[in-house]
Amino acid sequence: MIKIVREENKNINYIEKLKERAEELQVDVNMTVQKILEDVRKNGDEAVLNYTNKFDSCNVKSLLVTEKEIEDAYKSVEKEFIDAILLAKENIECFHRKQKNNSWIMTKDKGITMGQTVRGLDRVGVYVPGGKASYPSSVLMNVIPAKVAEVNEIIMVTPPSKDGSINPNILVAAKIAGVDKIYKVGGAQAIGALAYGTESIFKVDKIVGPGNIYVALAKKAVYGNVDIDMIAGPSEILIISDENGEAKYIAADLISQAEHDKLASSILVTTSEKLANDVYKEIQRQVETLERKEIIKESLKNYGAIIVTSSIKKAIEIANTISPEHLELMVNNPFVYLGNIKNAGSIFLGKFSPEPLGDYMAGPNHVLPTSGTAKFFSPLSVDDFIKKSSYIYYSRDALEDVKDKIIKIAETEKLTAHANSIKVRFEK
Amino acid sequence: MIKIVREENKNINYIEKLKERAEELQVDVNMTVQKILEDVRKNGDEAVLNYTNKFDSCNVKSLLVTEKEIEDAYKSVEKEFIDAILLAKENIECFHRKQKNNSWIMTKDKGITMGQTVRGLDRVGVYVPGGKASYPSSVLMNVIPAKVAEVNEIIMVTPPSKDGSINPNILVAAKIAGVDKIYKVGGAQAIGALAYGTESIFKVDKIVGPGNIYVALAKKAVYGNVDIDMIAGPSEILIISDENGEAKYIAADLISQAEHDKLASSILVTTSEKLANDVYKEIQRQVETLERKEIIKESLKNYGAIIVTSSIKKAIEIANTISPEHLELMVNNPFVYLGNIKNAGSIFLGKFSPEPLGDYMAGPNHVLPTSGTAKFFSPLSVDDFIKKSSYIYYSRDALEDVKDKIIKIAETEKLTAHANSIKVRFEK
Repeated sequence: MIKIVREENKNINYIEKLKERAEELQVDVNMTVQKILEDVRKNGDEAVLNYTNKFDSCNVKSLLVTEKEIEDAYKSVEKEFIDAILLAKENIECFHRKQKNNSWIMTKDKGITMGQTVRGLDRVGVYVPGGKASYPSSVLMNVIPAKVAEVNEIIMVTPPSKDGSINPNILVAAKIAGVDKIYKVGGAQAIGALAYGTESIFKVDKIVGPGNIYVALAKKAVYGNVDIDMIAGPSEILIISDENGEAKYIAADLISQAEHDKLASSILVTTSEKLANDVYKEIQRQVETLERKEIIKESLKNYGAIIVTSSIKKAIEIANTISPEHLELMVNNPFVYLGNIKNAGSIFLGKFSPEPLGDYMAGPNHVLPTSGTAKFFSPLSVDDFIKKSSYIYYSRDALEDVKDKIIKIAETEKLTAHANSIKVRFEK
Repeated sequence: MIKIVREENKNINYIEKLKERAEELQVDVNMTVQKILEDVRKNGDEAVLNYTNKFDSCNVKSLLVTEKEIEDAYKSVEKEFIDAILLAKENIECFHRKQKNNSWIMTKDKGITMGQTVRGLDRVGVYVPGGKASYPSSVLMNVIPAKVAEVNEIIMVTPPSKDGSINPNILVAAKIAGVDKIYKVGGAQAIGALAYGTESIFKVDKIVGPGNIYVALAKKAVYGNVDIDMIAGPSEILIISDENGEAKYIAADLISQAEHDKLASSILVTTSEKLANDVYKEIQRQVETLERKEIIKESLKNYGAIIVTSSIKKAIEIANTISPEHLELMVNNPFVYLGNIKNAGSIFLGKFSPEPLGDYMAGPNHVLPTSGTAKFFSPLSVDDFIKKSSYIYYSRDALEDVKDKIIKIAETEKLTAHANSIKVRFEK
């Protein structure tokens, strides 16, 4: 079970412990991945089909999901699910539209004109895991920012079931999000197909979406050839609360994070000894009623903690050090602390903004920096699906004004051909 | 020497050839790098000092550059150089200020309040190579965007000369750019110190700046522990011109790119057979007068080309496929083509906007995506030195409106503890 510790207890070495979760060397997996990638690069569709039928124990002849399959999926899913996904889509789109940056232009004396153009990437690949970890919400969160960024074509890949089908919830979510093409392929072979292109799958510019260790290592291997998103580590929540905290809500939120997987981490930092004890009891009560209780218990035991601290200020310091993926500020006036939060993926303010609201419905992205990387990484956003170019126009007069200074720096750097490029323009 | 080819010649497999430049496996170097990183992680300053004195053949006792050393540097550099750097700084700062994004907030019915905060990273490390490739302009281009992003502390590392000193031009540029601390350390040991921290060098959140293969592999190895910038490959220029092109300018610009190193690539795409021949002759004439002619000749021979094409439209297609780091549009009305350029790091418009203007003076960053990666990467910018957090506030009423839809999606995904986190808030 989760443990209660005092701030003064200097064995709060959670930060190191949290980081260690992510560090595992996978030499043999890496070799398998390299082999698959090389094969896909050389043999295209043939290799992709072979791996798919072998690893997914199925017998698919064609990788592309047909319109008929999507129609059938619509018929088989619940209407309430479709309605929920449609509202989620609307909210996610609304939030991400605010992230869009314009191309811009600036002018200066003597006709100088410069600026920056912003364009959506041409083609993006979205990886969606199959089986147990198959999440329609994840489809929305990865696809919608790309659509808002005006990416030309969005290709989704996901491994088929043994009967060659794809989870209908995933197909419906993909259609609603605006995916252009869906292929039945997963694992390193899917990443290879997206990175190098095959006869049926076009090469993309960027690959996003979570996956197992084969997918993660394959993405890492093709990085540079295409862009990739962050490598996602195990997930965390940190909740800050005082004596006004509602033990029942806090316990439920800590548990909801813990159900993700055994490596997930749930931490409460509170100024109230009483709340610490109440939450402890609530967790014990609630966990027994839940389906994934074995995972929850193990995660809370290994990576969970209730930390009692002397002040909210101190609690925020701990949060900034841990830099959690999700931070709930469950205090009476949460907005006054927003400016003090330096490092967190997403911040949930008040009693009625639980993490699952952000996971599914509110609008901000649920793809967030994990394992302390919120110190330097950011939530997935429209910015991840654009490319920028700068541009420069100088008139002859404008260049003449600065020519000697350019030549001086070029010559200091011993790049005399650079200096020459300026000189030839003003030779008699 | 550079060769002239016709567009119809289907052996224009430049793109593949350009990419191959960057692909070299470095297994043994990687092992050395891993060993150094591990040693620095464990033994801190002691390891850093040992490697520094060994690899840089010097005898430094203290890594930190003193105020006295910086004062002395100011005395030893030319006044004209300082003036040039001061103007460059002003221009670079002016351009990068326009890139700044604000934190923002949005409100919706029932008190919903959401948004995104933008903050500068806390601490950034800038790597500056020593020896031949020691470029003050590079110091400005890596440091100024970080300053504009309001990074709290900027630490520079650069290897010392044999006498334990640092190139005074670099010290002056660092001071002008606003570097907070400078340490005499280079190579993988510098990257290790910045990534893990030592007794004298604080751990940073992100490492930027170019370096040799040891530095590049060390950056790759510490990625995730800290953020890093793009791994820079060999440099390119592609110039598009028609019959109005000035052969002398074009030749000088192709050559200026070629002097960087033997792997640099310079390509002219022109609709004019006459211009192709004139540029060819001009290159032959100019190259003999330049100091770095051996490098220039080899680079032009291996990776240079003059491509004669049927139309500007076709030339732009070739440019978009190659996705060059630098693109010069040397035509009469270059602005009308700006919208057609999909992939390029920086675009130079007209006859008086040569690439060295962008390298040193105009204001846009000279750290640009190379080797075709402009398809998905962007110039270094203020965005590379910030982190974003999203935040969500929902009132009880607002959450109640969407509670059933959240529960529906959570249950579809079989994350029942997520559903429970919503349910407990509305239990009687």
